[in-house]
Order: sequence, then C-alpha cells, then structure tokens
Amino acid sequence: MKLRELADRLQCRLEGSGDVEIVRVAAVRDAQPGDLTFVAHEKYAADLAETQASAVIVGTALAEQPTARPRCAILRSDDPYSTFARALKLFAQTTPPPRGVDKLSSIALDAAIGQSVSIGAFVTIGAAASIGARTIIYPNVVIGPGAVVGADCVIHSHVSLRERVILGQRVILHDGVVIGSDGFGFVRQADGSHLKIPQHAAVVIEDDVEIGANAAIDRPPLGETRIKAGTKIDNLVHIAHGVSIGRRVVIAAQSGVAGSTVIEDDVMMAGQSGVIDHVRVGAGAKVGAKSAVLSAVDRGEFVSGHPAFDHRDWRRASTIFRRLPSLKKRLDRHEQRIADLEEKLAASRSPERRS
Amino acid sequence: MKLRELADRLQCRLEGSGDVEIVRVAAVRDAQPGDLTFVAHEKYAADLAETQASAVIVGTALAEQPTARPRCAILRSDDPYSTFARALKLFAQTTPPPRGVDKLSSIALDAAIGQSVSIGAFVTIGAAASIGARTIIYPNVVIGPGAVVGADCVIHSHVSLRERVILGQRVILHDGVVIGSDGFGFVRQADGSHLKIPQHAAVVIEDDVEIGANAAIDRPPLGETRIKAGTKIDNLVHIAHGVSIGRRVVIAAQSGVAGSTVIEDDVMMAGQSGVIDHVRVGAGAKVGAKSAVLSAVDRGEFVSGHPAFDHRDWRRASTIFRRLPSLKKRLDRHEQRIADLEEKLAASRSPERRS
Amino acid sequence: MKLRELADRLQCRLEGSGDVEIVRVAAVRDAQPGDLTFVAHEKYAADLAETQASAVIVGTALAEQPTARPRCAILRSDDPYSTFARALKLFAQTTPPPRGVDKLSSIALDAAIGQSVSIGAFVTIGAAASIGARTIIYPNVVIGPGAVVGADCVIHSHVSLRERVILGQRVILHDGVVIGSDGFGFVRQADGSHLKIPQHAAVVIEDDVEIGANAAIDRPPLGETRIKAGTKIDNLVHIAHGVSIGRRVVIAAQSGVAGSTVIEDDVMMAGQSGVIDHVRVGAGAKVGAKSAVLSAVDRGEFVSGHPAFDHRDWRRASTIFRRLPSLKKRLDRHEQRIADLEEKLAASRSPERRS
Repeated sequence: MKLRELADRLQCRLEGSGDVEIVRVAAVRDAQPGDLTFVAHEKYAADLAETQASAVIVGTALAEQPTARPRCAILRSDDPYSTFARALKLFAQTTPPPRGVDKLSSIALDAAIGQSVSIGAFVTIGAAASIGARTIIYPNVVIGPGAVVGADCVIHSHVSLRERVILGQRVILHDGVVIGSDGFGFVRQADGSHLKIPQHAAVVIEDDVEIGANAAIDRPPLGETRIKAGTKIDNLVHIAHGVSIGRRVVIAAQSGVAGSTVIEDDVMMAGQSGVIDHVRVGAGAKVGAKSAVLSAVDRGEFVSGHPAFDHRDWRRASTIFRRLPSLKKRLDRHEQRIADLEEKLAASRSPERRS
Repeated sequence: MKLRELADRLQCRLEGSGDVEIVRVAAVRDAQPGDLTFVAHEKYAADLAETQASAVIVGTALAEQPTARPRCAILRSDDPYSTFARALKLFAQTTPPPRGVDKLSSIALDAAIGQSVSIGAFVTIGAAASIGARTIIYPNVVIGPGAVVGADCVIHSHVSLRERVILGQRVILHDGVVIGSDGFGFVRQADGSHLKIPQHAAVVIEDDVEIGANAAIDRPPLGETRIKAGTKIDNLVHIAHGVSIGRRVVIAAQSGVAGSTVIEDDVMMAGQSGVIDHVRVGAGAKVGAKSAVLSAVDRGEFVSGHPAFDHRDWRRASTIFRRLPSLKKRLDRHEQRIADLEEKLAASRSPERRS
Repeated sequence: MKLRELADRLQCRLEGSGDVEIVRVAAVRDAQPGDLTFVAHEKYAADLAETQASAVIVGTALAEQPTARPRCAILRSDDPYSTFARALKLFAQTTPPPRGVDKLSSIALDAAIGQSVSIGAFVTIGAAASIGARTIIYPNVVIGPGAVVGADCVIHSHVSLRERVILGQRVILHDGVVIGSDGFGFVRQADGSHLKIPQHAAVVIEDDVEIGANAAIDRPPLGETRIKAGTKIDNLVHIAHGVSIGRRVVIAAQSGVAGSTVIEDDVMMAGQSGVIDHVRVGAGAKVGAKSAVLSAVDRGEFVSGHPAFDHRDWRRASTIFRRLPSLKKRLDRHEQRIADLEEKLAASRSPERRS
C-alpha cells in the first residue's frame, strides 16, 4: 500500500513523500525499507534517527524540530498508539478456515448457521445451536446444544461452549477457552460427602468481549454468569458461577473471581489477582498484581496485598516489612535501654530518699 | 410435575396445595408462577413475602409464624439446601450426545465399550481402553490406550485421559481436563542441561470425584498419583506427580499441590492456594485463599498466609501489617524519647556527682 | 533385559550376578523380583535392606560396607539419579499413534510432512505447515497454517499451535498447550473502550523445550516471543507476548511472566510465582514459590515474597511477621514505660529545681 493511501486510511498527517510502498509494520529497531514503524515516547528518539523504516507513526510532540527528524516519512497522529494498532490491523495476516463448513465437521441438522461463516474441521455444533453471520470457528471447537453465537465472532481451536451459552457479536475466544462448565457447588452431607448442586443456568458473554487461552467461565445453578460488553479477559483466568463482570473490565492472566461476586464497569485486575466470593468491586477500581481481595472494594479504589487494602498504604507497609528484622532489633534495644533507664532512675531516686 | 409429587420425591412436608404444576427451579427474586424457589436464611425473609414462585423450599425454622408465611406453598425440609440441590437435579436440562457411538469417532477395535454409553463426535479411544456402562463422553475427548473409565462417568469435551489412567465410577471431568500428563521431573546434568525423568506410572481417580475445567493432574515416574473417592477439584487446579489426595477433599480454583505431597481426607483448600512438595496436610485441615503452605499442616489446623500459619494468628498479624508505617513512627518517637531520657538522666545525675 | 546388558547400557558397575532378567523399574518399597529399583539417599538404607527388587541403582557412597549390602545385585553409578532416569527411559511404555497419518485427519495438501511421523485421528494441519521427521502428533491436535514443527517432537492431544508458530527439534508439548494465542494488548479509547492491538508476530520455541499441560504462550504485535533451548515449563504456566525466556530455564506450575519481560538463562521460578512486565531476571536467578517479582532481579539472586526481595531477608521478615501482635504489645508497653519514666524524671528533677 502506498504511504499516501495509508495516511488517508489511518487519518494521519503525512510529512514526506507518499509514494513509498509500505508492506509491513515492524519494530523501530527491526524495521527495513518498506516497513512502517512507530515511536511513542521521547526516550526512543535515538532509535528514530537510526531506523531503516520507510515511515514512522509519531505523536504531535515528537520529532517536530528539523534536527530531530528521521530520514523517513512521518505519519503524525494525535494518538499514535491507536494509529499503530489500526496500522497493524491493515497489515494483519490472518488465516482462518475457508468460508463455508468443513465437510469433516459434525453440525446438528437443526443448527442455524449464518451467512458467510467459516467452520473448520472436526467442529461439533449441537442441536438447535445458532451461529451468526461471518463468524469464524477454527478446527476442533465444540459448541453445545442450544448455544447462541453472535455475528462476527472468532472462536479459536479447542474452545468448549457448553449447552445454551450465549455469545454476543464480535466476541473473540482464544484456544482452549471453556464457557459454561459447572460451577463449583456442593452441599456437605452428614456423612461428610458432598452433594452436587446441579449447575444448569445461563452464561451470557456480551458484545466485543475477548477471552484468553485456556480461561474457564462457570455457569451457576440459578440466575446467570455474565460478562458485559467490551470486557477483556486474559489467559488462564477463572470466573466462577454467578459472577457478574461489568463493561470494559480488564482482567489480566491467571486471575480469578469467586462465586456470585460483582465486578463493576471499568475495573482493572492485574495478573494473578483474586477476588473472594459474594463481594462487590466498585466501578473503576484497580486490583494490584497477585493481590487477594477479601472484602468489598469502593469505586475507584486501588488495592493491593493479601488481604488487599489501599495500594499506597500497602506499598508503605511492604517497604517496612522488609526492614522488620532491623525494627525488631531496635525494639530489643529499646527494651534494654528502657530497663537501664528504669534501673538508673530507681537508683538515682532511692539515694535521694535515703538522703 | 405436581407439587405433591415433588414433595414426595424430595421427602419434604408440603404446606399448602399440592395441585400446582411445577416446571422449573428459579431464584427467589426471578421466580414466576410455576416455579419452585428456595430460601435458606432468615435475612431473605422479605424476598419470601414478595416472591411470585408457586412454591418455596424452606428450613424448619423459617416462615413458621403465620405473618411470615409466603403466599405460595411451602416444602419444609430439615436440610433445605440439600433439598434445593435435589430439586435442581429433577429439573436439570442436560443434553448429552445420543446413546451409542457417533460414527465420526475413532474407537480402537480392541477397546471395551460398556452398555448404554453415549460417545460423541471426534472422540478417540485408544487400544485396549475400556469404558464403563452408561458413561457419557462428549465430543472431541481423547482417551489413551489402556485407560480404564468406570460406569456412569461424564467426560466433557476436550478432556485428555492419557494412557493407562484409571477412573472410578460416577467421575465427572469438565472440559479441557488433562489427566496423566508427565510429571515435571528432571535431573540437572553437569553441563546445566535437564535430563528428563520419564513419567509413566499410574494415575488413579476414584469414585465420585469431580474435576473442573482445564485442571491438570500429572503422573509420576514410579508409584502413583491418586485422587480418592468423593473429592471435588475446581477449575485450573494443578496436581503434581505422585501426589495423594484423600477422600472428600475440596480444592478450589487455581490451587496447586506440588510433587509427592499428601493431602489427607476432608481437607479444604480455598482458591489460588498452594502446597509445597513432599509435605503432609492432615485430615480436616483448611488452607486459606491464596495461601502458600511451605511445611506440614496438622490435622484440623486452619492455616493462611505466605508462608501459611495459624489462620487467626495470620489475621491478627495482617491487621498489624497494615499499620506498620504508624508502628515504625512510634518506634522512631520512642527512640527519640529514650535518647532524651538518657540525656536528661545523665544530666540530672552528673550534677549530683559533682555536688 | 538381562541385568548385565542393562549395566552396560547404563554404564554402571555391576556388583552381583548379571543373569537376572529385569522387566520393570519400581519404587524400592513396591519392587518385586524382576524389578530394578533406586536408592539415592542414606536415609533409605533400611528400605534397601528390605527390598524385594532384583537389582538396585545406588551411588558410590551407599551400601559399600558388607553389612549394608542388599540381598540383590547392585548397579553402582557416580550419578544414580541420572542413571535412574535413563533406566526408566529404557523400560518406558509409550503408546503413540501408529506410524503414518490417520485417515481421519485433515492435512492441508501443501503441508510438508516428514519421514516416519505418527499423526493421530482428528488432527488438523494447516496450509503450508511443515512437520519434521519422526515427530509424534497425538489425536485432536490443531497445527495452524504456516507453522513449523521440527523433528522428533512429541505433541500431545488438544494442543493448539497457532499460525506460523515455530518449534525446534525434540520439543515436547503436553495436552492442551496453546502456543501463539494473541497477546493481551489494547489501547484505551476516549470513550473508555479498548481498541485491540493486533498480535500477529512470531513465536519461537527452540530445541529440547518441554511445556506442561494447559500452559499458554502468547504472540506479540511486533518482534517475537521466544523460549530458548532446553527450557522446561510446567502445567498451567502463562507466558505473555514478547517475553524472552533463556536457555535451560525451569518454570514450575501456575507461574506467569508478563509482557516483554526477559528471563535469562538458567533461571528457576518456583510454583505459582509471577514476574511483572518489562523487567529482566538475571541469569541463574531464583524466584521463590508464589512470589511476585515487581522489579529487576540481578544475576544469581534468590528472591521471594510479594513484592519479592532477597530470599533470606524475606524469610527473616516473615518469621517476625508472625510475631507482629507480640511486637505491637511490646511497643505499647514501651510507650507506657517511657511515659512513666518521663513522668518520674520530671518529678525527680522538679524538686531539684525547687530546692
């Protein structure tokens, strides 16, 4: 694609010649002639001067002075990071299964298959399931009876959508995702055994949700588990039964949310964090990496630690935690000095009394 | 089902008319006419008064007074939570693959397939494997050569049972479970490389075990990995090679047990917890959420933290951890006050000596 | 195999008769006649005297004295643990799919399939992918278009290799591993939504890497994710996009490494540990179990805790953490005693002044 056309499609201001042919997006240090690259921070200015790329996306503040200009053309953007993401999409090499339904698949006769779908080999689609238009299903996916998959979804290999799970539009599920497995619910009996509470209620994944590889989302006995629109969930995350995850929530890898908990809109959970069952994490709150939320979190709060509390307080406490041995030594020394003082004072006072 | 029949099957005392037709179990606030619902705690008494359900399961202490009675019929139970679980089972909508073996499967000629099994599409069953009667195998499951699956098991999609793994009866494996993968064992060589210790010994999953989505259970080089009867394991749990898990153990999501460790009967491990290798966790012990057990745990002990120790002590210590900055300030102030005292005392004593 | 031949193949010194037929390797307490067993530590000397095995692998220092000798033959080795691993390999019972390509597979016409491969049922191999000689692919594996798999690899069931992923030689991937799923990268937009950054760059898994069940390794938008030669990764590990893992690294189960982080050669990460994004963990460093590395780690350092710091310091601090309640009580008592001292000193000095 000519750089001129690219500038147009990315809605950037072009500085330099638009005639160069762009074939790829590459990192600033790896870029070769024909590549478009990207520099967002002043600290990479040196890379900018050295790059072999044919064009670079930069923000409005960067490389403005003639001396700081790279030799290549510039695509100037108010939001260079978003422009970079859009450029990557233009050059993305995706290789979905071909349009149509692979003959080595097992599609229930009464399944409703939308227009222009791509369904790969060894895919199973259960009775009365429906698949929206243009949805791409990679090989070896299993979609249970009665499941509803919206339009323009991308479902990678080895995903399990259990019976009656509902997916919105433009949902992306990475390989090995499980949606609708039984919630972990038992009633302890008098003999110590665990009576299973059947888990057959709804799971709803709304529009524009993306879920990472081998993540698992359980279904509840009653009510529903729901992941609201625009939420992004990373690899190996566990969402328990009856959980409600708000809109635009971000949950990083290996985090978990226990049963019936409510995560409100725009919450961010860092990696390996966890939230206990039956609590509410308020809108816009943040949970630090590897933190364990054991009670409710207020809107906009940032918590860390185990148990989690205010992030800045946790950082302060953690700093002192490292020094506990020296604090303890000081405490021991105080003990001795106080005892010495007490003795001396007693000694200095008793002669007084005697005198 | 008529409420009268339901009361009979659930062995509850019916208070009200038994003529109403019950079609579903629903949450107390969502329930509609035709629904059975469930209230276990006094605090939901208000919901009870408001519910649209046709009948409600309650305990012996609830809604006894005429004023507290709901408008609907009552199924009174000594153990309402268990009754609720049994009611859910009666109304459960499961949609296993049809009886028989899907023609798009790959079953070894010498595999022994029990009566009345349901085996879905794209299932592979290896040489000399055996599948018990009435066992349900969802699509895309792989059962390795020589594996033994008991009767009345339910094996969901994308489960891998590796070669010679043994499953008891009524075992439930959720989607993506891996049983019998190689334990993580290597011998470091003089050149720094890791020589693999082959892991080909036994894995035994006893009766009535349930294992959550994408959990992984490894096999050892010698001896066995064993999960004893009635144990329940949640999503994304890791059980290392040579581990022995007792009877009726409960292990919540994303927890892990390292190699050769013994978890005795009736232990409960909360979510994201872990136990180090080669230790014993005594019968009935509890491990708190996200806790790291780095040494043996006594019978009945409840431990939390990293490293884990007595739960109540951990809670007390955690409460003080938050206040470490203020404790440190107090320590600093003590230092100053002690120094002041020492100086003053020295000053007050030296004149004495001089005098 | 005759013990004499076994001694030869394992390059051990044989003490006793070499005529006995060895059929199996077994644990010292389980061993029966015909079994080879293994004792590495002095503390199992009692087992050695009792064993029913026909032969035992021991080190140079063990069972040297005639009184300590077992009744069975001895294979003496400078490195008994490695000898044990090699013996296990000789007797390993593996049951890969038969040589050739299962007819119930879906292999792209232009895929390059090496000599003597074993490809099981319901395997999908995408366009232009290549599979090295003697590689074993278990049932229900999906290998994406353009992926390159080296020779002598073992790929277990339900593995997803996404498009263009590159695997070296002798790579072992356990069941459910996902390689090349999209990295977790988004740009927050003014309206709060998350714009996806396409993730289509390279993932390279070098020679002799082994990856545990249900682990997930993401691909980046630019550059590459790379796991270098000889590295071993356990079950349910998460490796984010753009991460570089060095040679001979060991990462235990349920650990995670966040985006763009560099783990240098010979690092060891214990179970459930995590490393934040964009940091470097120096060669030979160790990360303790369940620890959270939130900043760079120097070569050879051993860190633990959350956040992680020097392991010995962490242990000392953790020991005191448990005693925080008693420390706080001591602090309270000091407060009182200092106040008492101040009062007494004031009282003892004021009369002086008056006098």
